[in-house]
Amino acid sequence: MIKPTSAQVNDRPAVIITDNGNVLEASLKGLSSRFHAIWLRDNGQDDRSVDKTNGQKLMALKDIPPDSLVESALLNESQDIQLVFGPDNWHTSIPFKWLWEHRYDSPEGPEQLLLAGEIDTWDSTLLRTLPETSFREASENPAVLLDWLQGIARYGAARMTGLPQKDLAVLDVISLFGFVRETNYGRYFEIRSRTSPINLAYTTRELQPHTDNPYRDPVPGLQFFSCMKNASDGGDSILVDGFRIAEILHREAPETFSRLSRYKVRFRYAGSDDMDLQASRPIIQRDVSGVVTGISFNNRSISALTDIPYDEMNDYYRDLRRFEELVGARELQVRFRLEPGELFVTDNTRVLHGRTGYSNSVSRWMQGAYADKDALYSKIRVLKSPRRC
Amino acid sequence: MIKPTSAQVNDRPAVIITDNGNVLEASLKGLSSRFHAIWLRDNGQDDRSVDKTNGQKLMALKDIPPDSLVESALLNESQDIQLVFGPDNWHTSIPFKWLWEHRYDSPEGPEQLLLAGEIDTWDSTLLRTLPETSFREASENPAVLLDWLQGIARYGAARMTGLPQKDLAVLDVISLFGFVRETNYGRYFEIRSRTSPINLAYTTRELQPHTDNPYRDPVPGLQFFSCMKNASDGGDSILVDGFRIAEILHREAPETFSRLSRYKVRFRYAGSDDMDLQASRPIIQRDVSGVVTGISFNNRSISALTDIPYDEMNDYYRDLRRFEELVGARELQVRFRLEPGELFVTDNTRVLHGRTGYSNSVSRWMQGAYADKDALYSKIRVLKSPRRC
Repeated sequence: MIKPTSAQVNDRPAVIITDNGNVLEASLKGLSSRFHAIWLRDNGQDDRSVDKTNGQKLMALKDIPPDSLVESALLNESQDIQLVFGPDNWHTSIPFKWLWEHRYDSPEGPEQLLLAGEIDTWDSTLLRTLPETSFREASENPAVLLDWLQGIARYGAARMTGLPQKDLAVLDVISLFGFVRETNYGRYFEIRSRTSPINLAYTTRELQPHTDNPYRDPVPGLQFFSCMKNASDGGDSILVDGFRIAEILHREAPETFSRLSRYKVRFRYAGSDDMDLQASRPIIQRDVSGVVTGISFNNRSISALTDIPYDEMNDYYRDLRRFEELVGARELQVRFRLEPGELFVTDNTRVLHGRTGYSNSVSRWMQGAYADKDALYSKIRVLKSPRRC
Repeated sequence: MIKPTSAQVNDRPAVIITDNGNVLEASLKGLSSRFHAIWLRDNGQDDRSVDKTNGQKLMALKDIPPDSLVESALLNESQDIQLVFGPDNWHTSIPFKWLWEHRYDSPEGPEQLLLAGEIDTWDSTLLRTLPETSFREASENPAVLLDWLQGIARYGAARMTGLPQKDLAVLDVISLFGFVRETNYGRYFEIRSRTSPINLAYTTRELQPHTDNPYRDPVPGLQFFSCMKNASDGGDSILVDGFRIAEILHREAPETFSRLSRYKVRFRYAGSDDMDLQASRPIIQRDVSGVVTGISFNNRSISALTDIPYDEMNDYYRDLRRFEELVGARELQVRFRLEPGELFVTDNTRVLHGRTGYSNSVSRWMQGAYADKDALYSKIRVLKSPRRC
């Protein structure tokens, strides 16, 4: 039975010292959460602990007694917790709001997620709602830019129209939020069919959807293609959400999902004399919590499989075949034709891109460049929050 | 008992089809190794399978029958295995030497390693043998450059002397093998003490050895510092091998090693209005095989710990303290003073760098820049091997 009076009391923030000063228990709205003394001492907001100019921590653990205890804790009228620690009589304060947002006392431990963050996976129906804006609006209106960047973060893909009619406008798009990742291909690359191509991208061939440069470590995080001229027929762009494929496999073929995320594959590119790039990683990458963090798939640059146990090799080939089938499934593919002045961007650690073959009567010409994702997320945070002090 | 005649026979390469065409068994010098039919079919070296110009694969698995079988296998005089596959009568060949180098049939499965690749971990005694060369020799002699780059790969650190006496010579050093990683800090950054510093690096404070930018994803792989002017006293550089610390913990404190590699830590940097960088990763990073692949430690930018279970928080703080003690242990630190025209480079995913505090009577001035590691390894491979055709 719920006691209204008690609930009313719990509605307000409260703190209480327990376990002989080793623990502080905070409570709000009928919930409570414990914090260790050493954790609180490490997260004090005083001038000796944190540089107010840049937010960086000023103390190392060697500056904090290992036997720190909470000696007193008082919640003042501004909802700051005034703390005194022993054994060195250290005074600091922590806002209750901040503390509550950083609670870690969960009986179940951290939540188990297959995918993390504000993302939505998609299939061919994304075509109708693929994030899109014009270069002009994105340049002039921070709210439009924010919306477009958040679209990239959420879907791993977006389009832009109305690029400046000039060479290398793709670099101007990257400048809206971040920085070019220069590689052995240069700060940008021209994609058109060539004789003696150093890469199959530079032919008229159909290209199976793939992620770029899995033979590189780190892999380029964002991949931009702007269209300078398209073919008279063919040369359509194809996008596939690798995270959707991971979800499907996790649900329908857990053994396949497991093998594709457990065993490393080697990738290599040595298409010209001045480079020999090699890297190895699983097709489906997960972090220590099991969250899927990346997809690498590029049939052109995969090397002989040697890191898979003999007894699982035939199974692994079936897994790869299944992955490839999903990559080729029309119901998972977004297809569109890029016209001059248009661009698409993909999260290259998630979304595969490809193209249909084309006839060479009119020369298809795209310009591409890479960028890192950290600047994308940083720009989103900065645009979302009011000016910090 | 060894039978010489039998040994003589086994000395020569041989192949035999087994398991009704599902497997090819190769043998050499008394050893044998099995290969699956689908694997062999996938690794054929014919013109339809591989583009001879750039080495890229031309076939996807959809182009290969899932029920491929080896119908015949003949070793010719050039030691190429001539293969015919059913059910589609596919002809190809694979050099025996290549096949033998790519065998995957090991009863124990892949070897369990804590560290992989050609690396040596080190302590303070590295000071005597830290790889070092002059800019001029590295620029003019490819063998010297190769040796220096291999030193970086092996030890995660190196020095260079005799840099051109000009602004931004650090970028010339990066051009010897690779490309600048441009970040929110620009293509390079100036390190000197400032009023209202956006980063504690821009003060005269001692800096605990750390890796740079753990709040970035991907983290910069290589970090270069060139000295323009040093302080009149203090400002010495400190390097510590994070992989050596991982080895020590793995041996002496396996629980600590395990927790530091199992739980993620959040890092954040929002020292100026135009950036808010965040990333999370374990202090000790391992790949799916358990190999240690990276170290991230930077006490200034570590955020409140929230991804560690409540019951392990106190233990985790003890682990962090132990890690920090090793970072500060003089017997693990290489210390030296950088003079104008000198530079050091670290593998920023492995080696921590710091500096002693200094007096500001003469203004210490360093220039720094980042680069990616893939170009380093690519350049090493290219310099090592004769021109490919």
